[in-house]
Amino acid sequence: MNGLFPLAKWSFRLSRRLPFIITPSQTALFAKSLRTKMTGSEQLRHDLEDAANRMRISAIEMTCASKSGHPTSSASAAEIVSTLFFNEMRYDAHDPKNASADRFILSKGHACPILYAAWEEAGLLSHDQVLTLRRIDSDIEGHPTPRLNFIDVATGSLGQGLSAAAGMAYVGKYIDKASYRVYCLLGDGESAEGSVWEAAAFASHYKLDNLVAIVDVNRLGQSQATALGHDLETYKARFAAFGFHAIIVDGHSIDELLKAYAEAKNTQGKPTAILARTHKGRGIADVEDLDNWHGKPVSEEKIGAIRSRFHGSEKGKLVAKKPVDDAPKVDLCIGNIKMAAPEYKLGEKVATRAAYGTALAKLGDASPRVIGLDGDTKNSTYSEKLLKAHPEQFIECFIAEQNLVGVAVGAQCRGRTIPFTSTFAAFFTRATDQIRMAAVSFANLKCVGSHVGVSIGEDGPSQMALEDLAIFRAIPDSTVFYPTDGVSAERATELAANINGIVFIRTGRPALPVLYKNDEPFMVGQAKVLKESPKDSILFIGAGVTLYEALKAAEELEKKGVHAAVIDPFTIKPLDVKTIAAHAQRVGGRVLTIEDHYPAGGIGEAVAAALGDLANVRVRSLAVHAVPRSGPPEELLDLYGISAKHIIKAVENFV
Amino acid sequence: MNGLFPLAKWSFRLSRRLPFIITPSQTALFAKSLRTKMTGSEQLRHDLEDAANRMRISAIEMTCASKSGHPTSSASAAEIVSTLFFNEMRYDAHDPKNASADRFILSKGHACPILYAAWEEAGLLSHDQVLTLRRIDSDIEGHPTPRLNFIDVATGSLGQGLSAAAGMAYVGKYIDKASYRVYCLLGDGESAEGSVWEAAAFASHYKLDNLVAIVDVNRLGQSQATALGHDLETYKARFAAFGFHAIIVDGHSIDELLKAYAEAKNTQGKPTAILARTHKGRGIADVEDLDNWHGKPVSEEKIGAIRSRFHGSEKGKLVAKKPVDDAPKVDLCIGNIKMAAPEYKLGEKVATRAAYGTALAKLGDASPRVIGLDGDTKNSTYSEKLLKAHPEQFIECFIAEQNLVGVAVGAQCRGRTIPFTSTFAAFFTRATDQIRMAAVSFANLKCVGSHVGVSIGEDGPSQMALEDLAIFRAIPDSTVFYPTDGVSAERATELAANINGIVFIRTGRPALPVLYKNDEPFMVGQAKVLKESPKDSILFIGAGVTLYEALKAAEELEKKGVHAAVIDPFTIKPLDVKTIAAHAQRVGGRVLTIEDHYPAGGIGEAVAAALGDLANVRVRSLAVHAVPRSGPPEELLDLYGISAKHIIKAVENFV
Repeated sequence: MNGLFPLAKWSFRLSRRLPFIITPSQTALFAKSLRTKMTGSEQLRHDLEDAANRMRISAIEMTCASKSGHPTSSASAAEIVSTLFFNEMRYDAHDPKNASADRFILSKGHACPILYAAWEEAGLLSHDQVLTLRRIDSDIEGHPTPRLNFIDVATGSLGQGLSAAAGMAYVGKYIDKASYRVYCLLGDGESAEGSVWEAAAFASHYKLDNLVAIVDVNRLGQSQATALGHDLETYKARFAAFGFHAIIVDGHSIDELLKAYAEAKNTQGKPTAILARTHKGRGIADVEDLDNWHGKPVSEEKIGAIRSRFHGSEKGKLVAKKPVDDAPKVDLCIGNIKMAAPEYKLGEKVATRAAYGTALAKLGDASPRVIGLDGDTKNSTYSEKLLKAHPEQFIECFIAEQNLVGVAVGAQCRGRTIPFTSTFAAFFTRATDQIRMAAVSFANLKCVGSHVGVSIGEDGPSQMALEDLAIFRAIPDSTVFYPTDGVSAERATELAANINGIVFIRTGRPALPVLYKNDEPFMVGQAKVLKESPKDSILFIGAGVTLYEALKAAEELEKKGVHAAVIDPFTIKPLDVKTIAAHAQRVGGRVLTIEDHYPAGGIGEAVAAALGDLANVRVRSLAVHAVPRSGPPEELLDLYGISAKHIIKAVENFV
Repeated sequence: MNGLFPLAKWSFRLSRRLPFIITPSQTALFAKSLRTKMTGSEQLRHDLEDAANRMRISAIEMTCASKSGHPTSSASAAEIVSTLFFNEMRYDAHDPKNASADRFILSKGHACPILYAAWEEAGLLSHDQVLTLRRIDSDIEGHPTPRLNFIDVATGSLGQGLSAAAGMAYVGKYIDKASYRVYCLLGDGESAEGSVWEAAAFASHYKLDNLVAIVDVNRLGQSQATALGHDLETYKARFAAFGFHAIIVDGHSIDELLKAYAEAKNTQGKPTAILARTHKGRGIADVEDLDNWHGKPVSEEKIGAIRSRFHGSEKGKLVAKKPVDDAPKVDLCIGNIKMAAPEYKLGEKVATRAAYGTALAKLGDASPRVIGLDGDTKNSTYSEKLLKAHPEQFIECFIAEQNLVGVAVGAQCRGRTIPFTSTFAAFFTRATDQIRMAAVSFANLKCVGSHVGVSIGEDGPSQMALEDLAIFRAIPDSTVFYPTDGVSAERATELAANINGIVFIRTGRPALPVLYKNDEPFMVGQAKVLKESPKDSILFIGAGVTLYEALKAAEELEKKGVHAAVIDPFTIKPLDVKTIAAHAQRVGGRVLTIEDHYPAGGIGEAVAAALGDLANVRVRSLAVHAVPRSGPPEELLDLYGISAKHIIKAVENFV
């Protein structure tokens, strides 16, 4: 189910536009016996060189067909990929998602033509298929996405692959306890991304000796040479300082590459980095190692010279090693994960962040594949409750939010785990690109952000999330929960585990009264009407602290004879448009939203847009309009215009 | 003006709530002569130890007064800060923003009590003032913000300070060509953030020997020990591998610290990192070096033991060295920067990204303090036009977007430059937290994001910005331009230079016809009505590619007798509500927005919210609703429902 066969899922979505589906049925050529001799074989070297050159040619041909793409960044990696795919890695070309197969992540995603060429060489794709590169009716996209069944995570935003690879390696070593290994191919340019070093620190801290990073140091970036050029020693020093066994090789030497892989396999207790000195455009006459050839097709005439280097090995001669079948079968039971009911008293003061921790620990009881990841905030987000109950289901990621999310994206691949990541919601902004790319990966990722809004108080604006709803609502197909009390926060967490996709839960710092009974049922997209009467003349919509302010204001207004309906939307995305619209019209068309968030992309805009098509419904919104400051929560709600007092004033002005 | 005296600016905003303003008038104690002897002095050591302990005590007292905050993270840094402030750094406590003064950035912002204590020790703040820590009527906030005149950049989101410091050091060395030095104090926990390593790589690449990073390695994070604990050698190896001269010291030893600063000063061609072994809660009995004391006030009774260590030096004995007055006086002339007019022919095909580059180069002619920064995409964003015209006004930041933005934030401090950063708009998501913090810094930052939306075509979803408007609109006080043609893109760039604040310009990949005459005037918040007639029955609002689709649809519809008004909003924030509302009502209330962006936080929601209060105006929106795929731009506009064809269909259904 979930994630094991994404192709089927996405094909369903766009089936009319996708005339072909890649199936693993074209592997008739995989008939020969497994080659085991690792080095010293002239024949093996010739076979792997020929495979590399066939892949080079295919990459050139497909980018000529698409009139765009990256043949030169592909060419530098041809030997790296041929040695990995046809001597080192264990996988089944019939079944790329096999749970026991070694993993390959192309972090330098723009070089995907070489990846497509590898799967063509392996027999999964036909040459006609790879020639559909970048066409709207083809899954052979400009950068890799899991629309293809042999791709686990989308890449193309640089520097993210190693985190995903580290997540897979962590799961392989500590959760699956299986022998599969994880190989990540990075570009040199992308190693300037800090996320690479977050991932490196994580991989060495957790002694991921099943992880191999290969850096294709081809010296040239998009617009000029990289900062380090061919200074391989500095790359080696950096990876070594970050806890890797680091090896420099000639990235076009089959022998050196095979030796390095063997050395990696023999390295215990630390990951290995292979720093491969290569040439961009390797083998392409008048292009190799020259600037200004990034992302440009080259003339097909260049192929002749590459072809002339063939030793005579034919496609299909080399057969990949089969996986060792030792990864456990996992059924995540998404849609059927049950949690023990909440146990609160009405009116009891509970912070939604604390309720989240309680629920997460219970979900950990329910499923050994529910895991928690945090960035050294676990005593604030309360994810530490899972750590205490199930230490083996918790991964401390330290203060490195990009890697926190990247590891989770890796951990969920092939349906191995359901990862809940948590940190202050403000610090998820650090991982916005990783979350954006998680959407392109169609990942099953949960992000739980605490300490939202000005209601955190004295810590001040750097710690206050006020744009998180805008960011997570923008993610396609995301679900955004904004639970107000302990009961709904626990239910949001349970529902999150049962959704296959990206979920955000917005939790708050202050302890506030429980509003719902423990047996109150909650559903995605179903709002709760907390207060209504036939006399209502306005509708309030709030969540978290502002829902309490709305209730307080409604009570005050009632004394003055003004009646307000109050709705708790529960999910901000999807919004319960039906309930909100019905009550908006019932009360005569006046709607006031109140939120502890900046105006753009928040509750106000979500409601205004959802009701935008209704004539005679008017929406006004109270939100935080300036960079806040430190202070006590209640005073800040007042200072930034979202307290009961301001709601009452807004009602008086709303004529 | 701009940025030199931010306190005045923000005091103005909230003046009624801020009973006191910090002025540099309390420096009567600064009467003694400058002490120059660097080491070897028992007396100096005693003086600096006493200063450190006074600051420790003050930090404890202020966090007791506020009942929250970080005395333990302050205590570990007390000697580092006392040696910096009272022996090493050159500044004028009367004039913290002095252009020639050394810069200090507290990257571990939660330790701000020690920073406030330092300015108290220097005589700028009174003890009563620092005791207002975290109160709503005080600028002595829970984390540092430039509401205080001695703070240049807000910190508190960890790992960002070194980028800002590197930006300041770059400007100091290459643009100001002045002798001021830059000191950045980091925590060990935050060195897990990749942004620290982006900054480190940048600083060594540009040989910033005027930059000193000091890492307060106190071993303990928020929720547990850090990954490296007191493994100082690994920190040293990492900084050394990233090109720093790295020194390990006992961070509580005055002598070792002073020696390290001297060594840093004598180091040519590379920045220095001082790895300081410290104890969290140093000097606080039963707290020092213990876990579970992060962010917690300690009993005031603990002060006695610290006091007993005093050598008898009094506050005011140590006087900071004065700055060497060699930084040029700079007037950025914001509001008065003029650019030569655009030179296009109507209908000529120009990409807005290309027009941006042209305008940036012209702004570079107009002001030597307009600088460009890019992340190895300069040949795609066209910022390379500035590089070609004014190489000394361009900073290549390589593929490290967090640092790209962080360096720019540093570069704009104290009104030294107007930085324009550029990359693919999708990759600004990598720096969302830096942009969020830039707002807390009230920074003068320009972000120009190219390659927006599905209209980039074959490169596919990883390269398509579809959430950028949501993110940048959410930034408080931001200005968001979405120019459609070459003329308006050039004018947006010119206007951006003349705004003191955060600006985003959304530029596109495809070359499209010039719509406006070269002398067309553009203003922030002023939309253009491109098509109107008395017969109009619907209003279209689009920008970039979708504005052309709207015009095409309007033309088609006219043949069927349906007349549509078409508006180009030019700025999405602020939105020209007046013009849009007037035309919405004029055409009878039907508004259709069309955007190459996801629905949340984009043009549709901005318009729906802006018109939300108008009864009888209805807003519908076309936007991209799913993760897109690779394909030709026109086909993608069609596949994702934002082409002329879909506009026509939407009009037919809009009854």
